[in-house]
Amino acid sequence: MLAFSREEFQNRVKNVKAKMEERGIEVLLVTDPANMCYISGYNAWSFYVHQMLVVMLDEEEPIWIGRGIDQLGAQKTTWLKRENIIQYGDDYVQNEIKHPMNFIANELIKRGQGNKTVAVEMDNYYFTAKCYMELNKSLPNASFVDAKELVNWVRIVKSENEITLMQRAAKISEIGMADAIAKAEVGIRECDLAAEIYRSYLTGTEEFGGDYAAIVPLMPSGENTGACHLTWTDRKYKEGDAIILELAGCHQRYHSPMARTIFLGKPTDQMQRTADIVAEGINKTLDFIKPGVTCEEIEATWASVLRKYGLEKESRIGYSTGLNFPPDWGEHTISLRPGDKTVVKENMTFHVIPGMWFDDFGFEISETIRVTKNGCEALANFERKLFVK
Amino acid sequence: MLAFSREEFQNRVKNVKAKMEERGIEVLLVTDPANMCYISGYNAWSFYVHQMLVVMLDEEEPIWIGRGIDQLGAQKTTWLKRENIIQYGDDYVQNEIKHPMNFIANELIKRGQGNKTVAVEMDNYYFTAKCYMELNKSLPNASFVDAKELVNWVRIVKSENEITLMQRAAKISEIGMADAIAKAEVGIRECDLAAEIYRSYLTGTEEFGGDYAAIVPLMPSGENTGACHLTWTDRKYKEGDAIILELAGCHQRYHSPMARTIFLGKPTDQMQRTADIVAEGINKTLDFIKPGVTCEEIEATWASVLRKYGLEKESRIGYSTGLNFPPDWGEHTISLRPGDKTVVKENMTFHVIPGMWFDDFGFEISETIRVTKNGCEALANFERKLFVK
Repeated sequence: MLAFSREEFQNRVKNVKAKMEERGIEVLLVTDPANMCYISGYNAWSFYVHQMLVVMLDEEEPIWIGRGIDQLGAQKTTWLKRENIIQYGDDYVQNEIKHPMNFIANELIKRGQGNKTVAVEMDNYYFTAKCYMELNKSLPNASFVDAKELVNWVRIVKSENEITLMQRAAKISEIGMADAIAKAEVGIRECDLAAEIYRSYLTGTEEFGGDYAAIVPLMPSGENTGACHLTWTDRKYKEGDAIILELAGCHQRYHSPMARTIFLGKPTDQMQRTADIVAEGINKTLDFIKPGVTCEEIEATWASVLRKYGLEKESRIGYSTGLNFPPDWGEHTISLRPGDKTVVKENMTFHVIPGMWFDDFGFEISETIRVTKNGCEALANFERKLFVK
Repeated sequence: MLAFSREEFQNRVKNVKAKMEERGIEVLLVTDPANMCYISGYNAWSFYVHQMLVVMLDEEEPIWIGRGIDQLGAQKTTWLKRENIIQYGDDYVQNEIKHPMNFIANELIKRGQGNKTVAVEMDNYYFTAKCYMELNKSLPNASFVDAKELVNWVRIVKSENEITLMQRAAKISEIGMADAIAKAEVGIRECDLAAEIYRSYLTGTEEFGGDYAAIVPLMPSGENTGACHLTWTDRKYKEGDAIILELAGCHQRYHSPMARTIFLGKPTDQMQRTADIVAEGINKTLDFIKPGVTCEEIEATWASVLRKYGLEKESRIGYSTGLNFPPDWGEHTISLRPGDKTVVKENMTFHVIPGMWFDDFGFEISETIRVTKNGCEALANFERKLFVK
């Protein structure tokens, strides 16, 4: 079931260890499910209980530690040796009295890692405050440091094999978005459109199917289009509704998000004008992206188009994307915004989403792009305009 | 867009405050999205950035604090006054230099709450180790305590209105599971079955549609049925495959999970025997549940059936369920397992899932049940057997 060769996985371990050495980290506790998957292949919906991958400088292979009923999933989906898959008992699950981090600490001590410099992913969803407290208690001789987004940064430039999976995800996005636009109409319920979106995005193509995206369809409509993270309800679409669709094709956990906006009926002048500005802005922005420019310069290109029309936008206009698990398909590394001076490199992949959200309406066109040798290319091929029905 | 009356929400606030007083908590920081929704109605996919609801003993209404682009969603989905919806700037988002908890701490200080006893949800996904460190730094005069599952325990007995939403979710489960069983066949891909499952579960009924479940379809098949948290791949089903489906109908964020197992072809004796034992076990267990019994007694009833056949199962056989957001539809309160001495009350709702997972195969039948005045009832009405196709 491995999505990549053992060599590619082992190369990833090597790159992670190099970063660890650079930063004086001897033991890295990886709790971000995307980082776990990137290093080991692990892919199961078990991140709602505590689990981790332990990367040790002085051990060749990482170890997976998780709940007993998930160890078979780790055997099935990772390249790790059986002996490096460690399970804790079910009485550790969501139990006030025992915490999995106590078990994990003990495993580290058993392996002679209890007095090392241990890095933890301090701001990851799956490394709670309690995890940190319990680890501190159970590993009194360790020195803890914040790993920050160490593995996420190793993931920042995609391999050709990763790009291939994202291109498949983009193909699914094209098909799914076209189906969604075709199906959206006055009188159907938002949930019916969501049903169609899932049907299409999971069916994918005959050659490759769709995986679940790390974010569900975001689809505010009507008077709610300014509230970009609303999902769907039972409300029926009516004449004059705008519908924003922010969706991602996903294949083997790799995403290619894309947003478009539909209007049911004759769009208001304000909506059409905003659509034209956003289309001009995203086109100019994509034209600008190439290796060597900085992330804040990308945002500045967008902002200069807005300024021409007397508009501004406070929020970032994109971020690095690729492999992920809920609740976010963003990688928490690069943001396209003022102050981000990261220099763009070939085969970085961004979701460029310069959405405009006001109190009474919103509009989005977005693209997932890959930085090429001399520029960038949108992974999906889909018209950039307001879709009027 | 409120799913409940203002009175019901205000009653929830009252119950939360009563628990806070009992435990000497003056300020409660609520970061679990289900707890935020329970108290305020807030419902958007924005939990991938830091946000919270602040309940203060000396303020009538809680305040919502979140990202700027989400404040409109808070206006649209909560009953809170506009002045109690507070936004932080976009430069706080996933930025190494600034953390939203610094902003939030400042808001607490401005409101005279900076020197109080502040409770935080220490083991919640959305309260990371970093959140705790930053709050500690920014609120040097506060005393921090672990709220544990304070609000989750307030949610443990469902109101009649909540039961109604769960009954709708169960109706969706019935329809969706029937559709999934009808569609499962040799030659289709796992992703195609997933597509059908989503189509059916989101379409729901004419009267009410489906919402996204907090866990995606869990559907291990073939030689992987022992690995209960695997999702789907592009693999085609073949003759002799078992397929486990653990799925939840969901309506307005309320869940009614249900698992069934399908066999394509003639089941092995071992599979049929396991199916019969599990069906007998779950029936006996449900017959036993009523107000006054303890959670560990429920598990013991199941275990006694297994013992009769020389079997045992280490993992818990169920947990409290209802309102939730990813990554878990379980409420992290009650587990049906040895040692849990919680006394069962009317209108508690459990997902009873005595799955059996072995190295080479697995089998599941599960039900979501409501405790009634004198016993319990399964919310969905669906045959408990191995479905052979």
